Amino acid sequence: MTDDLILHEYSQSGNCYKIRLTAALLGAPLERREYDITKGETRTPQFLATVNPNGRIPVLQIGDRFIPESNAACFYLADGSGLVPHDRFDRADMLRWMFFEQYNHEPNVATLRFWLAFLGEERLDEMQRALMPAKRAAGEAALQLMDEHLAGRSHLVGNRLSLADVALYAYTHVAEEGGFELSRYPAVGRWLELVAGQPGYLPMSA
Amino acid sequence: MTDDLILHEYSQSGNCYKIRLTAALLGAPLERREYDITKGETRTPQFLATVNPNGRIPVLQIGDRFIPESNAACFYLADGSGLVPHDRFDRADMLRWMFFEQYNHEPNVATLRFWLAFLGEERLDEMQRALMPAKRAAGEAALQLMDEHLAGRSHLVGNRLSLADVALYAYTHVAEEGGFELSRYPAVGRWLELVAGQPGYLPMSA
Repeated sequence: MTDDLILHEYSQSGNCYKIRLTAALLGAPLERREYDITKGETRTPQFLATVNPNGRIPVLQIGDRFIPESNAACFYLADGSGLVPHDRFDRADMLRWMFFEQYNHEPNVATLRFWLAFLGEERLDEMQRALMPAKRAAGEAALQLMDEHLAGRSHLVGNRLSLADVALYAYTHVAEEGGFELSRYPAVGRWLELVAGQPGYLPMSA
Repeated sequence: MTDDLILHEYSQSGNCYKIRLTAALLGAPLERREYDITKGETRTPQFLATVNPNGRIPVLQIGDRFIPESNAACFYLADGSGLVPHDRFDRADMLRWMFFEQYNHEPNVATLRFWLAFLGEERLDEMQRALMPAKRAAGEAALQLMDEHLAGRSHLVGNRLSLADVALYAYTHVAEEGGFELSRYPAVGRWLELVAGQPGYLPMSA
C-alpha cells in the first residue's frame, strides 16, 4: 500500500513545478493544494504548525508526514527509479547539480523572475534594486556554467535523464521572464528541448 | 580497489570541514590540498579547467573525477553507510535538512562568520553592511527552527547520526564567530555536544 501524496504549493513557483514534473515523469498521482505566497498563506500559524515551520512551499505530504525543500521532495519521489543514477559517482554528481541549483541558480535566476514578473520592478524596495546587478551577473554565470557543461553532452549527469535535469529545467526554461537571454546559451537551449520531449513531460502551466 | 580521495579545500571553511568530518566518522583516509580563497587561488585558469568550473571549494577528487558542492561530496563518501538512513522517508528528510543548510543557514550563518571573523567588519563594502541585518535575522531564524526541531529529539532525522547532523554541525558550532549567541538555542547546544561526542569525531582545527 502506498501513502497518498499531496503537494502543498504555489503553482507558478519553479520549485513546486519540479516536484510535479518528477511525479509526472514517474507516473505518480499527486493531489495539489494551492497557497498564495504573495498573501502570506504559508506564514499562517496553522501552516507553520502542521505543514512547514520554515513557512515555505513546496512541501510534499506523504500520508501524515511532510518533506519540505523541493529537491528533497523530488528525491523522495524518484528514489529507486531511473531518475536517480544507480552508479555511486553519478548519484553524488546528480546531487552536486541539485545543490548548485539551490545555491547558485535559484537565488539569482528565480529571484529575478519573481521580482520582475510577479512583484513588478516598480514595487521593488531599495535593497532589492541594489541587489539586481549582482543577481543578474550571478544568474548569467550559472547559465554560462551549465552551457559549457552541456556543450557536447546530452544530459547534466551521464547520458540519461536524472533529477539534476529536472531540478535545473524548472527555473531555466522560464529564465526569460527574469530578463535572461536564453539565446546566449545554445547548449542549454538544446537541453531544454530534450527535457521537454521526454515521455510523461508536463508543462509548468498544466 | 578504491580510488584515492583528495579534498581540495580552504580548511577554515565549514563546507570543507563537513567533508573531513564525514570521512573521519567513516574512517576514510583523505589527502588534503589547501587553497587560500582570500587570494583567489580557486579562480585561477588551472583550477577552473581541472578542479571546478564554478571556482569554489570544497571539491572532492575521486581518482581523476571531481565532485563539487560540499553536501554532494559528503553524500558520495557516506553513500551506503549508516550516515545515510536506510528508510526512504528518512533519507529524503536528511536531504531536506541538507538543502535547508545550503539555502537558509549557510548564506547567513556562514557568510556573517566570514565577513566578521575573516574579512573584518571594517573591510566590508557598503552592500555587505546593508545586507547584515537581513542576514542576522535569517541566520537567527534558521537556528531557532533547528532549536525547536531538536527540542525533545536527539538528532535531526530519526534517532541516529546522519549527514543532516554533520552538514548542520559544521557552521553551527562556530556560529559565535559570526556574532550569533548559541546560548539562546539550548536544544542546539545539547545536539552540538552529542555530535562532538561521536566516535571518530574530528575537530575543525585538526
